[in-house]
Amino acid sequence: MARYVFGIDLGGTTAKIGLLTEGGEKVDFWEVPTRTENNGEFILADVADAIRAKMNERGIDDSEVIGAGIGVPGAVNVDGLCYQAVNLGWENLNVVNELHSKLKLPVKAGNDANVAALGEAWKGGGRGYQNMLLVTLGTGVGGGIINEGKILAGSKGSGGEIGHIHLEDEEPDACGCGNHGCFEQYASATGAVRLARRILAATDEDSALRHIDNFQCKDVFDEAKKGDKVALQIAEKYGYYLGKGIAITASVVNPEIIVLGGGVSRAGEMLFDLLKPSFEKYVFPGCKDVKFALAKLGNDAGVYGAAKMLLY
Amino acid sequence: MARYVFGIDLGGTTAKIGLLTEGGEKVDFWEVPTRTENNGEFILADVADAIRAKMNERGIDDSEVIGAGIGVPGAVNVDGLCYQAVNLGWENLNVVNELHSKLKLPVKAGNDANVAALGEAWKGGGRGYQNMLLVTLGTGVGGGIINEGKILAGSKGSGGEIGHIHLEDEEPDACGCGNHGCFEQYASATGAVRLARRILAATDEDSALRHIDNFQCKDVFDEAKKGDKVALQIAEKYGYYLGKGIAITASVVNPEIIVLGGGVSRAGEMLFDLLKPSFEKYVFPGCKDVKFALAKLGNDAGVYGAAKMLLY
Repeated sequence: MARYVFGIDLGGTTAKIGLLTEGGEKVDFWEVPTRTENNGEFILADVADAIRAKMNERGIDDSEVIGAGIGVPGAVNVDGLCYQAVNLGWENLNVVNELHSKLKLPVKAGNDANVAALGEAWKGGGRGYQNMLLVTLGTGVGGGIINEGKILAGSKGSGGEIGHIHLEDEEPDACGCGNHGCFEQYASATGAVRLARRILAATDEDSALRHIDNFQCKDVFDEAKKGDKVALQIAEKYGYYLGKGIAITASVVNPEIIVLGGGVSRAGEMLFDLLKPSFEKYVFPGCKDVKFALAKLGNDAGVYGAAKMLLY
Repeated sequence: MARYVFGIDLGGTTAKIGLLTEGGEKVDFWEVPTRTENNGEFILADVADAIRAKMNERGIDDSEVIGAGIGVPGAVNVDGLCYQAVNLGWENLNVVNELHSKLKLPVKAGNDANVAALGEAWKGGGRGYQNMLLVTLGTGVGGGIINEGKILAGSKGSGGEIGHIHLEDEEPDACGCGNHGCFEQYASATGAVRLARRILAATDEDSALRHIDNFQCKDVFDEAKKGDKVALQIAEKYGYYLGKGIAITASVVNPEIIVLGGGVSRAGEMLFDLLKPSFEKYVFPGCKDVKFALAKLGNDAGVYGAAKMLLY
């Protein structure tokens, strides 16, 4: 008898759902719209219906399904309580209880960044490692800590939310969170552009970036790779903060491997060279011996990780 | 039939051993010398003999003993491998395997600071909490992270070794670890004295501290409590760094309670007032809602925590 598990990566626009075997083989991945009206009250029913329909379609019996895991864009504690998910309209919703009451199968829930980390540890860039740190470099900086093969959720679901650790005393601008000098003010895609504008304003030197209307983070790394001196200087400053933030986090949780994901990670291996000088300068020597890798699962990481929560 | 567990807190001079009931009642606590000659090869045999002798003395049968846990002054991974314990002469010793082969009872091992954190979470200042951070303010700064009731050991046993997270870019002096600007360069007892000497050198203002030969950390807090202006300024600077280091750590692992232990914590509740301004300034808002408490078990924390590892 086959044994299956469902993984759900819930976003503000769609929910990605995956049907996988117990061993993590992809059987079927699809999406359903996320209906956010009425404080998102239909979302979990829609997801449950989609899963039930898939089981009918494929003739899968309840006894063949281990359960369903779901990653949520908000803080979720170990009991499945989601404190707030702004993009869904949820507040203080126990996702495990709610989805279980509709689906009648075992359910686990976690924060989407943490769940993606678990996916990368299971089948992606951190495959084979029990202690992993995922650093997601996107519009913001997110993260997930995998400790002994499991998500570190923290008491209120904010474990691994490392985008707001303090890195810089001299930051005049406020972060979205209200603090000053947060990791994500530098190491996110928007942070890279912010650093770029500062460095360009401080020099008269020409740069290809000055000739690109509304340049983006990708342009900075592309031009740096082509040898643009100012772009390289910006990339080095970016790497300084990335390495510093990772060093501090690694000194707290001592991972075996650090995986970089998110849009900025498409800059590739270059990021490792950029971050290593400050990583090595700031990391506690007992935590220095760590591997670096790039995320491999892209947008599927959350589906894999959500499913994996059922297989602890 | 009674069920017992042994806890061992191994130090460079003595091993504290405790016989406890499964529920954590103290039955018998005693010490044996730590023989460090020949790279500490007799240490675990001595401990095993001491436990066996106690079992004979009290007529305790093997079937009544759940096992023995041991906290070691060095990094220990989840499998019990101790990479190095300088004060014992050990290198790459699997403590679990070695002690088990001598004692013939189930064995668990951990780093002493992490094990002390588990003790405080079980029976001390963090009692009743599953997600706890212990910050040990002694000659250095140590720490331990309890995640879902268990020690976060990290991949090489350096999880929770937070004394070396980077806090200050402008530090000219090197830390013992070789880095500059580590948490323990400010928040340890020696760090407090260092801060005091700097502040005293920068002002002409009189202070009781100027009239105490070789003043210690305790004098700084005692004089601050008495209203000495310069001592209070030093205590505030100390609190600034303590709060900043705790804020960063809490933003990574999101504990429910933070417990302060070690010699400096004898300064008492005053420390909470001193650390809170910078804690609140630097912590990620999602991790701000946290309790603070003082450690309660003193030198017994390690024995309790060592025993508790067998009761996971």
